[in-house]
Amino acid sequence: MPGLAGIVIHGGASESWIGDKKRYDDTTAFLQTVVSSAESALGHGALAIDLAAEVVAKLEDYPAFNAGRGSAVNIDGNFELEAGIVCGATSGYRAAVCLQATKNPIKLVRAMLDDTGPSASVFIAGAGGDDLAKRLALDIVPNCYFATESRTSYWQRKRAEISEHGTVGAVVRDSHGNVAAANSTGGMMFKPVGRVGDTAVLGSGLYADKRVAIAWYEDDLALIRCGLPSPFLGRFSGGACFN
Amino acid sequence: MPGLAGIVIHGGASESWIGDKKRYDDTTAFLQTVVSSAESALGHGALAIDLAAEVVAKLEDYPAFNAGRGSAVNIDGNFELEAGIVCGATSGYRAAVCLQATKNPIKLVRAMLDDTGPSASVFIAGAGGDDLAKRLALDIVPNCYFATESRTSYWQRKRAEISEHGTVGAVVRDSHGNVAAANSTGGMMFKPVGRVGDTAVLGSGLYADKRVAIAWYEDDLALIRCGLPSPFLGRFSGGACFN
Repeated sequence: MPGLAGIVIHGGASESWIGDKKRYDDTTAFLQTVVSSAESALGHGALAIDLAAEVVAKLEDYPAFNAGRGSAVNIDGNFELEAGIVCGATSGYRAAVCLQATKNPIKLVRAMLDDTGPSASVFIAGAGGDDLAKRLALDIVPNCYFATESRTSYWQRKRAEISEHGTVGAVVRDSHGNVAAANSTGGMMFKPVGRVGDTAVLGSGLYADKRVAIAWYEDDLALIRCGLPSPFLGRFSGGACFN
Repeated sequence: MPGLAGIVIHGGASESWIGDKKRYDDTTAFLQTVVSSAESALGHGALAIDLAAEVVAKLEDYPAFNAGRGSAVNIDGNFELEAGIVCGATSGYRAAVCLQATKNPIKLVRAMLDDTGPSASVFIAGAGGDDLAKRLALDIVPNCYFATESRTSYWQRKRAEISEHGTVGAVVRDSHGNVAAANSTGGMMFKPVGRVGDTAVLGSGLYADKRVAIAWYEDDLALIRCGLPSPFLGRFSGGACFN
């Protein structure tokens, strides 16, 4: 039913503002601005797939979330980012993981979606992904760009234990009736080098079809192991999610 | 229904023996030996998950298939391998992609399955995967180990065009009623650096639950885009695959 438009975003990083009222208020205000701006764009006919990527890019740039700047730190003290996007209308899906230099992983996967040729990459990992971002003229940053004082000091304090993770994401239904989902994350603190989480994997952290879009986060070891449980999808099929 | 045991293997590399009778006969004889040996092990109570990995490791070592030795060559003339495994009984799933030095990717994912701790890697990419294989004392080889004369000369002849891909895999049902699936591939000739295919991704190239195991290969851009179509799985649920 075209015309019913909406957006849902998530930034699974509640730990970053627990006990910090100013940070909580600032983050809430920022999120409200993001949502208002998106709702306005939807009213002007913006497409779900474009808006999902645009909103997640804003969340990547905001350092309170575990995606883009502010990402979790891996076991070596570096940053490896991942993002995925799926378009319900076309079933288009793209993912990139273990990125170390691509400023906005979500912009990379959105751009990958436009290449539908026979040699198009659907899922790309590591330096190959960063090189593709360069070729697509996307912003490239030194790995330390992703660092924030709070993440780095946490890493230094708690290097011996594994904790805290999250991601950001958005699901959008546009005024044309299309839905889309987009996810981005820095993974889990102290994750092993090369670790791929569930965030960017279709059927694990992401799902969309003609009627429903899901951007999920969970213990990274749970979703990628089992995919989205079919009963869950069954409950939401028929457009229940947005109706 | 425990007691009904069986194995199905695939080596999606038919192009390697077209027009070469000796190679065809040798490969067929090799496959028959692999299957006979596996059937004998099943009769002695071997577990589906162990046998799936063991059989795929043999296929990786045999150079006629696009997995392990004999893998497809990427755009840079190097080899990046991937493998995945899923155990129907436990829903255990592990994957490794963009490996450049791990002699048997399937042995890496089988070994990963035994680590169920909170920091266990479920899905690992690139050098991090090769490093994990080293730590697990698996065989490490120089990247050129994966080269065969036929693949390399094909790459040299046809560098400008993209063609030929495949994978190897096995689905096994053991005498205890457990099923398992395992897949391994070198990906697609001339693939971009860092490209991840569908072979190792749960719900794309691989699936198993308590009753059905699927190891699939297809145009790599098709399965990872859409996952296994639910209607397909629906048709096989209830154990139809092995009954």
